[in-house]
Amino acid sequence: MMLVVEYDGTHFAGFQRQKDQRGEPRTIQGTLEEAIMAILKEEVKVVGAGRTDAGVHALGQVVNFLTRRAIPETRLPFALNSVLPPDVVVKASHEVPVWFNARIHARRKLYRYSVLCAGTPSAFLRDFALFVSKPLCVEAMREAAKHMVGTKDFSSFANAGSKMKSNVRTVSRCEILQQGELLEIWVEGDGFLYKMVRTIVGTLLEVGRGKFSPGRVEEVLAARDRCQAGPTVSARGLCLVEVGF
Amino acid sequence: MMLVVEYDGTHFAGFQRQKDQRGEPRTIQGTLEEAIMAILKEEVKVVGAGRTDAGVHALGQVVNFLTRRAIPETRLPFALNSVLPPDVVVKASHEVPVWFNARIHARRKLYRYSVLCAGTPSAFLRDFALFVSKPLCVEAMREAAKHMVGTKDFSSFANAGSKMKSNVRTVSRCEILQQGELLEIWVEGDGFLYKMVRTIVGTLLEVGRGKFSPGRVEEVLAARDRCQAGPTVSARGLCLVEVGF
Repeated sequence: MMLVVEYDGTHFAGFQRQKDQRGEPRTIQGTLEEAIMAILKEEVKVVGAGRTDAGVHALGQVVNFLTRRAIPETRLPFALNSVLPPDVVVKASHEVPVWFNARIHARRKLYRYSVLCAGTPSAFLRDFALFVSKPLCVEAMREAAKHMVGTKDFSSFANAGSKMKSNVRTVSRCEILQQGELLEIWVEGDGFLYKMVRTIVGTLLEVGRGKFSPGRVEEVLAARDRCQAGPTVSARGLCLVEVGF
Repeated sequence: MMLVVEYDGTHFAGFQRQKDQRGEPRTIQGTLEEAIMAILKEEVKVVGAGRTDAGVHALGQVVNFLTRRAIPETRLPFALNSVLPPDVVVKASHEVPVWFNARIHARRKLYRYSVLCAGTPSAFLRDFALFVSKPLCVEAMREAAKHMVGTKDFSSFANAGSKMKSNVRTVSRCEILQQGELLEIWVEGDGFLYKMVRTIVGTLLEVGRGKFSPGRVEEVLAARDRCQAGPTVSARGLCLVEVGF
């Protein structure tokens, strides 16, 4: 079974189940597995297309799990939402072949990073956008964003913890939309290294602040050295919008 | 001094300071008075234009307080925001004459009530919109909303707890905007009785569900009986957008 899941990641330790000194922190995977247990009376393992970090949100995360129960796919979202906490919502469900794996078969992911560039912060966006009080040069950021697009070695944008064999990824879209004081940085690709989207955004913000020239992105990419890129920005502005298969 | 204040009312017991068995619950007034004390080192009484209930939000609440300190009005929002919790933000401040009283001198208030009419709830709007899973007839609601506009006796829309001498109020605008699955009911008037906006919305929703005809609003108004109107809807969808003086 496949589920499309929306969540406010603020009060979660991330997607993936984990253990710390105090036991198991609250995770999306754990929360979904508990809800499925409550409804289907079956212990399942939930696999997510993207293992979002603590504080990262999702509008269209896709997960799958194996079940022996026969449940009409149209009834499942309603049933699961009746036991899920209000910060996790199942938007849709679809039957999928048993070999389907949301993580392995995801071919495209679309992320949105929100930046509030304003004189004062926002009480409503405090968990959903990075607050920047100084003006940003959006034109320079757009120029820099063009250099992010393509099939490239993104080693400079991969934080330690990335254990992938190859750091080559294809970014098919890196665009900045401006709606008043809100900047939305849309990044789409076939896959992303650990904290790559947030480091791309941190680098674009350095360009917006005038600390990096737009062309410096090419040098950062060529260096294959994480120290050359900008900082990794806060998780709160990041949202996994869509997964393609 | 006058402040324009934005807040996410979810984790507040309302605007006004109060006492319960367990002491003083968290209020907007109390939070602002503490922040002013921290910055100006002066005990003040904050007066709000609208005493919003627990869970009600504000984009443009207006408050005033008397201070003997000389502080540049342009610096005050930044200073207060540095000590305020992230769910309360001072957007602007203006010097006002000592006789100014935000509650008494408010001549116009604009509220927005948000309703999410969709197949599944939203993880992001859970505290900011009423969730309605069955379709609503927006055209009938618009028809009914027209009857709310004018200078009328709104006794049927005033919950117990309203201690006003007269229940006549002027509603200058009652409009429904539709943006996809989100309905916004905008209500503007010179003043509102206790829970009046939420009872207007509850009555419009009864019309949207087909339980009341649009014309029934006139009968409800004429009855001057709270039992004739629809239910008072949840505070979470309500937001005080603007106050005019």
